[in-house]
Amino acid sequence: MFWFPQKRIFLDYASATPVLPEVKKKMDKYWSKDFYNPRAIYKEASVIKEEVEEARKSVARALGVSFSGIIFTASGTESDNLAILGTFEIAKEIFKKPHIIISAIEHPAVALAAEEVVRRGGEMSVLGVDEEGRVSPEALKKLLKKNTFLVSVGLANSEIGTIQPLSKIGRILREYRKDNESPYPYLHTDASQAPNYLDVTLESPNIDLLTLDGSKIYGPKGVGILATRKGVKIHPIIFGGEQEGGRRSGTLNPSLIVGFTSALEAAIKDREKESERLKVLQKYFIEQIYQHVPKAVINGSLEHSLPNLISVSLPNTLSEFVLLKLDKEGVMVSVGSACSSDGLVSGSEVIKALGKHQLAESTLRFSFGRQTSLSEVKRAAKIFCKVAKSLL
Amino acid sequence: MFWFPQKRIFLDYASATPVLPEVKKKMDKYWSKDFYNPRAIYKEASVIKEEVEEARKSVARALGVSFSGIIFTASGTESDNLAILGTFEIAKEIFKKPHIIISAIEHPAVALAAEEVVRRGGEMSVLGVDEEGRVSPEALKKLLKKNTFLVSVGLANSEIGTIQPLSKIGRILREYRKDNESPYPYLHTDASQAPNYLDVTLESPNIDLLTLDGSKIYGPKGVGILATRKGVKIHPIIFGGEQEGGRRSGTLNPSLIVGFTSALEAAIKDREKESERLKVLQKYFIEQIYQHVPKAVINGSLEHSLPNLISVSLPNTLSEFVLLKLDKEGVMVSVGSACSSDGLVSGSEVIKALGKHQLAESTLRFSFGRQTSLSEVKRAAKIFCKVAKSLL
Repeated sequence: MFWFPQKRIFLDYASATPVLPEVKKKMDKYWSKDFYNPRAIYKEASVIKEEVEEARKSVARALGVSFSGIIFTASGTESDNLAILGTFEIAKEIFKKPHIIISAIEHPAVALAAEEVVRRGGEMSVLGVDEEGRVSPEALKKLLKKNTFLVSVGLANSEIGTIQPLSKIGRILREYRKDNESPYPYLHTDASQAPNYLDVTLESPNIDLLTLDGSKIYGPKGVGILATRKGVKIHPIIFGGEQEGGRRSGTLNPSLIVGFTSALEAAIKDREKESERLKVLQKYFIEQIYQHVPKAVINGSLEHSLPNLISVSLPNTLSEFVLLKLDKEGVMVSVGSACSSDGLVSGSEVIKALGKHQLAESTLRFSFGRQTSLSEVKRAAKIFCKVAKSLL
Repeated sequence: MFWFPQKRIFLDYASATPVLPEVKKKMDKYWSKDFYNPRAIYKEASVIKEEVEEARKSVARALGVSFSGIIFTASGTESDNLAILGTFEIAKEIFKKPHIIISAIEHPAVALAAEEVVRRGGEMSVLGVDEEGRVSPEALKKLLKKNTFLVSVGLANSEIGTIQPLSKIGRILREYRKDNESPYPYLHTDASQAPNYLDVTLESPNIDLLTLDGSKIYGPKGVGILATRKGVKIHPIIFGGEQEGGRRSGTLNPSLIVGFTSALEAAIKDREKESERLKVLQKYFIEQIYQHVPKAVINGSLEHSLPNLISVSLPNTLSEFVLLKLDKEGVMVSVGSACSSDGLVSGSEVIKALGKHQLAESTLRFSFGRQTSLSEVKRAAKIFCKVAKSLL
């Protein structure tokens, strides 16, 4: 008799996504064949330059901003930094001590860039969240000051999946600007986790700056964008050849730019269908946990949540330990954000911000994606419930 | 009778290089198959993390620095910025007005980052060059001040190929540091054009920070490194997940990192052979120009030059016009650096720095590479001489 090893189950799509075959195909020709620098002016390079600018137009259309509003960067992290430090450096010319507001559950790329604002002479306020991870637009109103240059609230949280009321926040900021006859504060959102499931246009929610990352939308790692609304002023954080309208220097990267664009197009095309499909799997998984592991705690919001993400705490366990047990059983998951500091485990800041300090080191993130099937989720739920029951 | 179109001749390797087939092969698996985030802790991700750290070790060995001295970035431009702004932010804690010295022919990534130093409260001195583009170590001595935190001199110039006396500069700075009992000034060099032809280890020339770029060494665009000597202190310019020992945040990019490493290994392996081969082609090309276009001016140094680069000025011509004529005839070249500002043509700053203002808008760069053959160079020389003679 043969023994067939079962396929391992990848449930960490919020951390990394495989590049879609059709995306990879489009990227391919730019490495060894059409490798020319888009800045060069001979025929072959001009063609590539045009392809890059076509990609830019497609991204601009998808996000509802003008062509020149799209800045290609090397990551969502760089985009967040450009949004925050780039607007800060301009605001410093206007305010003595520019003030930034971020939510208590922002990604480290936002939180640490905001700390750099403070180091450079600005000040920061942290907007708390409720136990579901939602910020309160009314609470934000109270934090606004004449010198507030930026409010940064992530559209959908990468650890617990909670979606924020960005339209309301956008309206509040618009009114505040009108009342004070000021272009500030701007609204920035890191929407890296969102494009597969949510609308990410800037217009109707009055977003001024929006971050996306190729590696979260089945595109390549190494590319992100910062989308900016007309009139938003930013100072570069990387200086040199003055690509991207002088706002971000470095040779244009046709492979990654075209790959990002193609991935975003696919995300938008399949958005509704995938959201509906994954909601069913998510509901099933949560029900299994409620049923078989009553002591487990599901974090986040039931009403306002990404359809692919489930944050589960097992009280009095160590998440790394549980993760390695699941790994052994063939299930690949994450302990909150994969972007936190190398090796150092001090518990999830996001879970702490929900008021659940005692669960901060006991939380796992399951995130589904395009290749996740019902049978995989059934198998993963079984394995997880078994492991959890053995520990609680 | 059939008409066979002749293959076009690419002579712009200083601007972009095709990814080597063996490099592309190594990069390939990380896009769609081994796409996991190296930060994750399940089995598959740990394997990738190890492959990335093996790559880091290989680069560190090649450059003669310790494992932790290698910082992977998204470009040579980012590396230059990190070297300059990163050391500046630390120096600001020590000096009231930190002082940077750069040569007059630095790449915009160095020159504009140095301007940002000035905007942030530092000061800058520009070290002039002679008519061959060489800096004088003695002149550098006179510019050094107690508050000099960094000297940035590119190892080999991207427009004219001139190689700088970095060992001498390194010795001068070492002595200055010793005399002043200070860790400053550091020596930074953008060596992006060098690895295919020159030794780029940090040790013997006493280099503290060294920039390389994947796209100039037959590796992928979108990846660079900053190599740092032990003890060199830098503040990040991009904040977040604290990858790269906290000095550069953003998800590790296995495909680009492994690609860069593999390309660097190949560059070092073939360095001597390629240098010898290209020297012959370079000599031939220059001789043809001298012989057939006596009015042409060859810029740079005959003694201290990259073997693959020739800068030629045709007095009273407009380089873009000549370039388009050559493009039509099947020869792809560049007007100096491809990294200068979009569309705006104001003449090469490098040529101006040589004291040849009247030639700044009349200069072309021919750069050879791995695929350049003698027959190509012969054909290109013929075409160029014909075009040049028709214009002079």
